[in-house]
Amino acid sequence: MQDHRFILSSNDIPHAWYNIAADLPELVPPHCHPATGKPLTPDDMKPIFPDTLIAQEVSTERWIEIPDEVREKLAIWRPSPLVRAVNLEKHLKTPARIYYKNEGVSPAGSHKPNTAVAQAYYNKQAGIKRIATETGAGQWGSSLAFACDLFGIECKVYMVKVSYHQKPYRRSLMQLWNASCVASPSQDTKVGREILAKDPDTTGSLGIAISEAVEDAASHDDTNYALGSVLNHVCLHQTIIGLELKKQLALAEENVDVLIGCAGGGSNLAGLVFPYVKDVLDGRGPKLIASEPTACPTLTRGKYAYDFGDSVGMAPMACMFTLGHSFVPSGIHAGGLRYHGMAPTLSLMHKLGAMEARSYHQNAAFEAGVMFARTEGICPAPETNHAIRAAIDEALRCKETGEEKCIVFNFSGHGHFDLYSYDKYLAGELEDYDLPQANIDKALGELPTAHAE
Amino acid sequence: MQDHRFILSSNDIPHAWYNIAADLPELVPPHCHPATGKPLTPDDMKPIFPDTLIAQEVSTERWIEIPDEVREKLAIWRPSPLVRAVNLEKHLKTPARIYYKNEGVSPAGSHKPNTAVAQAYYNKQAGIKRIATETGAGQWGSSLAFACDLFGIECKVYMVKVSYHQKPYRRSLMQLWNASCVASPSQDTKVGREILAKDPDTTGSLGIAISEAVEDAASHDDTNYALGSVLNHVCLHQTIIGLELKKQLALAEENVDVLIGCAGGGSNLAGLVFPYVKDVLDGRGPKLIASEPTACPTLTRGKYAYDFGDSVGMAPMACMFTLGHSFVPSGIHAGGLRYHGMAPTLSLMHKLGAMEARSYHQNAAFEAGVMFARTEGICPAPETNHAIRAAIDEALRCKETGEEKCIVFNFSGHGHFDLYSYDKYLAGELEDYDLPQANIDKALGELPTAHAE
Repeated sequence: MQDHRFILSSNDIPHAWYNIAADLPELVPPHCHPATGKPLTPDDMKPIFPDTLIAQEVSTERWIEIPDEVREKLAIWRPSPLVRAVNLEKHLKTPARIYYKNEGVSPAGSHKPNTAVAQAYYNKQAGIKRIATETGAGQWGSSLAFACDLFGIECKVYMVKVSYHQKPYRRSLMQLWNASCVASPSQDTKVGREILAKDPDTTGSLGIAISEAVEDAASHDDTNYALGSVLNHVCLHQTIIGLELKKQLALAEENVDVLIGCAGGGSNLAGLVFPYVKDVLDGRGPKLIASEPTACPTLTRGKYAYDFGDSVGMAPMACMFTLGHSFVPSGIHAGGLRYHGMAPTLSLMHKLGAMEARSYHQNAAFEAGVMFARTEGICPAPETNHAIRAAIDEALRCKETGEEKCIVFNFSGHGHFDLYSYDKYLAGELEDYDLPQANIDKALGELPTAHAE
Repeated sequence: MQDHRFILSSNDIPHAWYNIAADLPELVPPHCHPATGKPLTPDDMKPIFPDTLIAQEVSTERWIEIPDEVREKLAIWRPSPLVRAVNLEKHLKTPARIYYKNEGVSPAGSHKPNTAVAQAYYNKQAGIKRIATETGAGQWGSSLAFACDLFGIECKVYMVKVSYHQKPYRRSLMQLWNASCVASPSQDTKVGREILAKDPDTTGSLGIAISEAVEDAASHDDTNYALGSVLNHVCLHQTIIGLELKKQLALAEENVDVLIGCAGGGSNLAGLVFPYVKDVLDGRGPKLIASEPTACPTLTRGKYAYDFGDSVGMAPMACMFTLGHSFVPSGIHAGGLRYHGMAPTLSLMHKLGAMEARSYHQNAAFEAGVMFARTEGICPAPETNHAIRAAIDEALRCKETGEEKCIVFNFSGHGHFDLYSYDKYLAGELEDYDLPQANIDKALGELPTAHAE
């Protein structure tokens, strides 16, 4: 029987992260201060990040060593398997070969612990006792809770209120890993109290939760902040995905033709594709595809501009593809993809023409996820379904053309805590809306001005 | 960095199951007809099982070939990893080495698909279009749903009513895999309607659900029945766990001293230990430990006798350790361990003195599970926590004596759908009851009489 799973040993966990800043033909424009619009200085970031992470955020070194203590913790679940989806291929009757890198095998169930472990480690090294963060559906919050618990750091999670009530199990997971989790907006911060005073019944948003976590970190001496996506150092930590993939594809004796990831803040996609971007820019690389929801089409309909990282203008501005920080996507189940912006590194890469972007309605995404679950067995996260949809579409195109392409997608997480959304899909209760251009135009009309030069 | 995960390739999936009947010094007494008490004939079983499984149930051949089609489907997730729990060892400061065989990596999240895939395959071969089964917490129902979907067989699951409402996500998983799932007792069977007529508010029980599924299978020509534990052929299919383990321990250059599994119906424990039993009987083997709940102490306080497989006397009698078919355990969260009987093969082995049994209260079990989640990352199923508790106790004993034992336990499943019970435990809301001897005596006083000689 041919082996369809390509598994590495702990020793194959990369010894260094790959920093794409070393190989992009342009520098990523600096992040800017939300109040002044001027480039952030390291001192601006010190109240919420340790020096090592600030240095990684602006580094142009190609390789950044992974500390042994981080590799040891990553070894709890890494390297993640690369699996050939033979049953899906047979079902599709495609000549293409479809592989997925299974990041769902981590304790928290997604790629997020890759950076959570690194961030918890560097904060521990800096003597930090407590980390505050936000979470939407709970993937990031549970990942950081897990990582903080490994290093004995306290963890406070501001969880978007609607998810806090709809996804109690991810909250349970955070508590299991010793974190404290509150519904956002909360009474625990000034910004939370102000929003609740105006609108006690608000469902909350990721932007509000970010604002609360940043305020918490900035106003407590022993507390730092941690972000689960978007920032350069977060994408850097995720590059172990693509670095492992290269070794696994060599084992499988494959050259990848198409690389696919879903894109919310961008970190799982960045981690998958960054190690391939130099080849792409040199004209030798695979086709790269970002798959995003039609309800939050940052790359396909957004603008490359400076915008705030959060929704209320407290977080720094970044130069990125954005729909405008005031843009509010409809309530799709892929909560992790409901972000107005996109990682600046990934955004620059996309601006340089190194990547395609596609958007899918959620019914089309769930259709793909159900097909995957019924052929390959594993139930994917709603976010991941967007990547699967794009992979299936590529494979069906190969069926038409007869091309025997090698397609790899990032299986960013499992859907064990999202089964409610599958019930809705299977009951035919999910609706797809076309997003009016006026909604985007309005939010883009409210972009802030940076003074980066 | 030393590798702590021992991973095999698809080619290492065993080519044959190991049948312990070939090596036990006594034959497992025959199953008997529930009405007559006389040994079941193959003809008695034909209405609900395919011939191949009936043959496996009574076979004394040592090795039974695994069909290639079954191995191909098992390869979706097998071989399962053997992992050394180094973080748990460090936390315990034990000189023992603790390993776990991670059966939680299967699509349904437990060891159950190992037999579900085999049973679905043989039913498909026999031209069966539909399979009916029961499920408690949903582990078995979701596993059979997954397996039936792989082979295009319809699947009907009778799910114990209290779990049907308390564990909606395992129900969602069954629906995702195309199964139809009803709360038991249901209006779909005669036995269900009778029970509902007497007690409309009953919470149901595994015994009732078995009765419904057996009736469904016996009364539909195109429908067979499938059981997730207890029977000889089910334990047989699980032996791939122990067979893989032997290869993995050779890779790890270990000789196992203690082998541990939790025991409800007994199949995960059987699968782990059967390949080691001949060594044990020859005086060379590891110590084998069955870990069961104090609330349902089948091996530690039950009797070796003939009893019905279900709670109402419709299913065949088996010679096994039992608390009596009318015994109703308290509502502990480890639903999969709330069964009055125990696999006859495992029971005989225990009667022969080849295995120890221990019982734990649920708070002690959850304490172990939380320790595991906080050190090794993965959240275990409440059932699995019983095995972890016994492993931790063995490791702590080694700490006292200084012995560097090699301890292996079966991580029978993850707890992603059981987080509610962790919430209860962490909130201090789980209660432990001492089971009065009178309850056991009463149920044992109602044992049926078999005429097996």
